[in-house]
This record gives sequence, structure tokens and C-alpha cells, in this order.
Amino acid sequence: MASETLVISIDAMGGDHAPDSVLEGLSLIAKQGFSVRFLVHGDEALIAPYMDAHPKLKEISEVCHTDKHVAMDAKPSQALRAGKGTSMWNALQSVKSKDAAVAVSAGNTGALMAMSKLVLRMVPGVHRPALAASWPTQKGAAIVLDVGANIEADAEQLVEFAIMGAAYSRAIHGKDNPSIGLLNIGSEDLKGIDSVRGAADMLKDNEMGLNYIGFVEGNDISLGTSDVVVTDGYTGNIALKTAEGTAKLVSGFVKEALTSSLLSKLGALLASSGLKALKNRLDPRSVNGGVFLGLNGIVLKSHGSADAEGFATTVRLAYSVGNSTFHQDVEASLSRFQASNPEVQEKVDS
Amino acid sequence: MASETLVISIDAMGGDHAPDSVLEGLSLIAKQGFSVRFLVHGDEALIAPYMDAHPKLKEISEVCHTDKHVAMDAKPSQALRAGKGTSMWNALQSVKSKDAAVAVSAGNTGALMAMSKLVLRMVPGVHRPALAASWPTQKGAAIVLDVGANIEADAEQLVEFAIMGAAYSRAIHGKDNPSIGLLNIGSEDLKGIDSVRGAADMLKDNEMGLNYIGFVEGNDISLGTSDVVVTDGYTGNIALKTAEGTAKLVSGFVKEALTSSLLSKLGALLASSGLKALKNRLDPRSVNGGVFLGLNGIVLKSHGSADAEGFATTVRLAYSVGNSTFHQDVEASLSRFQASNPEVQEKVDS
Repeated sequence: MASETLVISIDAMGGDHAPDSVLEGLSLIAKQGFSVRFLVHGDEALIAPYMDAHPKLKEISEVCHTDKHVAMDAKPSQALRAGKGTSMWNALQSVKSKDAAVAVSAGNTGALMAMSKLVLRMVPGVHRPALAASWPTQKGAAIVLDVGANIEADAEQLVEFAIMGAAYSRAIHGKDNPSIGLLNIGSEDLKGIDSVRGAADMLKDNEMGLNYIGFVEGNDISLGTSDVVVTDGYTGNIALKTAEGTAKLVSGFVKEALTSSLLSKLGALLASSGLKALKNRLDPRSVNGGVFLGLNGIVLKSHGSADAEGFATTVRLAYSVGNSTFHQDVEASLSRFQASNPEVQEKVDS
Repeated sequence: MASETLVISIDAMGGDHAPDSVLEGLSLIAKQGFSVRFLVHGDEALIAPYMDAHPKLKEISEVCHTDKHVAMDAKPSQALRAGKGTSMWNALQSVKSKDAAVAVSAGNTGALMAMSKLVLRMVPGVHRPALAASWPTQKGAAIVLDVGANIEADAEQLVEFAIMGAAYSRAIHGKDNPSIGLLNIGSEDLKGIDSVRGAADMLKDNEMGLNYIGFVEGNDISLGTSDVVVTDGYTGNIALKTAEGTAKLVSGFVKEALTSSLLSKLGALLASSGLKALKNRLDPRSVNGGVFLGLNGIVLKSHGSADAEGFATTVRLAYSVGNSTFHQDVEASLSRFQASNPEVQEKVDS
């Protein structure tokens, strides 16, 4: 599949700095020679002049005009009511009609989630989609999900997240048999909430063919104890943002330490190559991009505040997922889950 | 109160390296001239030789012999059944009998929690105790609770945590009117789980006299957006451990960056004073110690793996809390809550 040209559908009007940051991000990709074409949804009057000035991008892009877009502060319900024909809606519609393999938006998360469900619908066998994040660890990277598509998740939904997370880990991290951990707290008698214990019982079932390794704690995420970390969207979102805040705090401490005296500054100058690598490693733009799993089509969400480099990171991720066999993989795993848990299938059918 | 000698009751047999790490920690305090006396509960045969070799510590200590102790891997239910007469139990008993103002243990968290509830009982008006942690922020430090005493919390319990957290912030961080945030996720339509929304409604009530500032997200904790961050024990424990893991990951990245080349190493040498300050700042031993709030008496928990310096940090914290008016403060705030919410009082009474 990687030899064919992948078509990616872009919501050019989503994001705090749209359409500029989006178009500049696409331009970065265009220069890097990916085998890709873009359907660029948005206001042609704003987009066309940029394209004219950037022939490499223009060559691989088709501008799909609409003068409607979803406001960054719109409530999902508002966005849904007035959503038809917006650049976000049309970007999703391109995936539904198979004109594109993947959609990317830096717009309002809640609106994108709600609209994706409505336009693309769920994969048969999945109750709710999940937002998955790639998380840097001591061993490389882990997939953490759900990081905020839903608030709560019951035991079966957590198992579905595990299945989708494992398939996603295979697709983008190339893990053959990704290990799966369920996020929990450690205290002996308090083995976590009911949904988590219920999911653990199901995941232990060998017939599911999952490499479930048991409960993991918050500190295990960064340790890389498991390739996939499964949790509900409320806990996952708080864990993700707590980690982002902590990384920022520690980076600030490092900066202070290296500017605290003339000697420290001189030392930092000498160590600048190492410190530059560190800066890149901690750059949130280098890990930008969450993916909605569980839909009939792949939708990627960039941070609303992403600049061109950040948006390009998400497009690169879209390229990897779009060229993988993720969808077939999820479907096969879900079938195994339903075969070994017939009562789950009944619930989905009803 | 600070002029009187504070008596602190010590579980000398709790912790991975007990009693050595505990006794060495106490020795550090003894050398620092705090106005303090220790009731040291544990095996006299192991403790007495250390005391004989450390006269400064011996002078301010009374060894209370018991040959029983709670195993680090005991389940809380086991620990409770066989708990009476253990060093942990006796340390708590000293607080109950008013022989000591505060108890400190590095033993099994679940066992300490269960035993503390049984021996000391809850403050009237509190349904469940909370474990509170001091969290480094860009502005100094915040109090986060509950970080693992309970799994779930309903709206009223979250309000009680807010009251206790505010009193604790006044006691140990000296904040006059600490700001309180409720940990939640940001997405517009998904205003978090029912308990959190319910707590928000109650905290908005001006008659409670709390400085409630609204919802905060995971990244706000390290930013120091609020002085107190309130959440349930499941989420709080995961957030705390995720932050610990992230700080460790980033520290590892920094170390790699500063040893990646000869020039970087030389730079690190020149910057060593700044980097040493950084190391101290990131040293988990410098923030060791959680406190159980809501009991008739103050109980502090040190990390089980704490060394002498880590244990001494918890004892210093015990000294601050023991010399504060924390208890009177909590009682007054709880009375205000009950006065403005009579139905809560009924629930407590029943």
C-alpha cells in the first residue's frame, strides 16, 4: 500500500492559527517528498494565494472550497447542528466517500469527536471511539488511550480500547505483539474501580490473543512497562495533561539551573549540542497528534495551538496510519473478542 | 505552640529499610535542634544499640518496645486482624492517648490507612480520610488530595477534601486564603463526572468561605494555578505517580544530554553548581511525606523506600503540622459547611 499515493483530507480552517499554520505545515510535508495528495477544505480566498506562492504544495493539493467553519469555542452540540458543510465536516465526508484515507484537523476536539461519530459511524463491535496518544517512555514510546474522547468507560469498553490500542501500536510502532497494561492504583486491598477489575478478568482470557500483562501504575507509563496503557478518558486526559505540565516544570528548572551563574551559562554553551537534542526531545510539537480509534475511517487531531511544525507532525502520523493495515487488524481482533464473549456481540447488535 | 516541645510518635519498624533508615532519619533531626521528643515504637533489641551509639537522639527519645510489626506486603484486612500491639498500632495509640501529637510511619500504606481509621476514628463531619501530597509547582508548592486513601469520592466527600486541603495549605504553606481547584477535563460539553460537577455546585456557595476558583486541568497542577487541587483517590494517585514518572524520564533525558559528548561533559562540569541545585530540586526525598487528613489526630506516611534523608523530610513535615492550628481550622470550616448544607449533617449523624 505504501507505494500508492495516500490521499489525506485536511480541515484547513481548524486551529488557533488556521489556515496559516495548517498550510505552512502542509508545505513542510510537500518539500519532504512523501507520496501523498491533499484535499484541502476551507476558504479558497484565503488558501489560493498561499498555494500560488508555494507551487510544490499546490501540485499535490486540491482546494475544496467552503466558507463555513467550526468555531474553536463551539460546543459540540452547536457544532453538530450547524456543522454540515463546514471545513471539518467536509474533511470527514472525504473519508466517508473514500476520496481520502485519513482526515486531519486541529479544530475543536469535542466538535471533531461528535462530528466524526455522526459522519463516519463506529466500526461494528465498538461501543465508543477512543482518543489515543503516543507517549514518550524510557524504552521509546507507548500508546495511551483513552485520553479524552469519553468520560467514563465500562469493562467491555476498556477491553475494546485494549484491542484498538494493540492494533494501533502494531501499526505505528511496529510492535509484533504489543504488551497491554491496565492503568490502576497499587494499594493491595484497593484493586481499583469495578470497570478496571472487570476488564482485567476479560483480558486474562487467552482466546483473545492479547498480550495482557496486568495492572500498571502512573509511573509505569513513562517507564515503558507496557506498549499500550488502557484507561478511561477522564483519567487518561488528566494523566496526559499532568505529564505535559510536569515535563514543562522540569524543563523550566533545567533552564534556570543552566542560567543561574556565568559559569553555568558557559557550561550550557559548551554542552549546547547535547542540550539542543534534549530540547528537540522535549518539544511537544514532536509528539503532536492524537488519533480517534473505532471509527469507519481514520481521523487525527492536532493540538489547536500547533504551529506549522506541530501540524506537520500530525500529518506525518496520518501518513503512517493511513499506510498501515490498522483497520483490518482491529476488525480481526474485535471478531476474536466477540467470538469468546458472545454476550458482548448481543449487546452490540441490540 | 511552637515553643512547647512537640512529641512525635514513630513506627520504627515500618519501611523497606527499617529500622535503620528510620533511626538514621531521626538522628538527622536530633542534630538539627528541633524542639521535639520521639516515642520510638519497635524492637528494643534492634533499636537500643543504635540509641547508645547516638546520644543526641537517645536524649530526646523514649523506646517503646514491641516485637510485633506489620509486614510491608500485608493486606490491610490481615494487618487489621493481627494489628494490635504492632509498632504501627502502638504509634497510632500514642496519638490517641494524647501522649504524642503526630504519628509517622513508612509502613504499608493500606494497613496504615485502615489502622488509623480504626484507632483514631474520623473527625466528626468527615466521611472518609484523604491522603494529601505537597506538589512542586512553578509558583512554589500546591496541596493535592486525595492521592490514594480512597478509590472513589462523591460530591460531598470532594467538598470535605477541599475544606481539609485548604486548612492544610494554611497550616504548612502559610497561605491565608488558599485557592481551590477541582481537577477535571477541559472539553466543553463533557464537564466531567457527576461527583465533580456536584462538588463544583457546592463549592460555589459563598457561605462556605472557601476561595474556590473552578475546574483545573492536569497541566494546571504544576503551573500552580490553584493552591489546593481536589480530586478522588484513584485519579489523584494516578496523576501523582504519572508526574513522578515523567520527572524521572525528563531527568534521564537531561543526564543523557549532558553526557552525550566530551564537550557536553565539560559543559556539565562548569555548570555543576547550577546542576547540583537542580538535582536537589528534583530529589524525590525533598518532597517525601503524605498526610492523612480527617482523623482525630495527625498521621504522616513516608514512602516505604525512603532513606534516612527522606524519612527526616517527613518528620520535619510532621513537626510543621503538629505545631500548626490545622485541627481547629478543619473543625471550624467543617462546621460552616454543615451549617450551609443541613442535609450533609443529617447524613453524617445517621
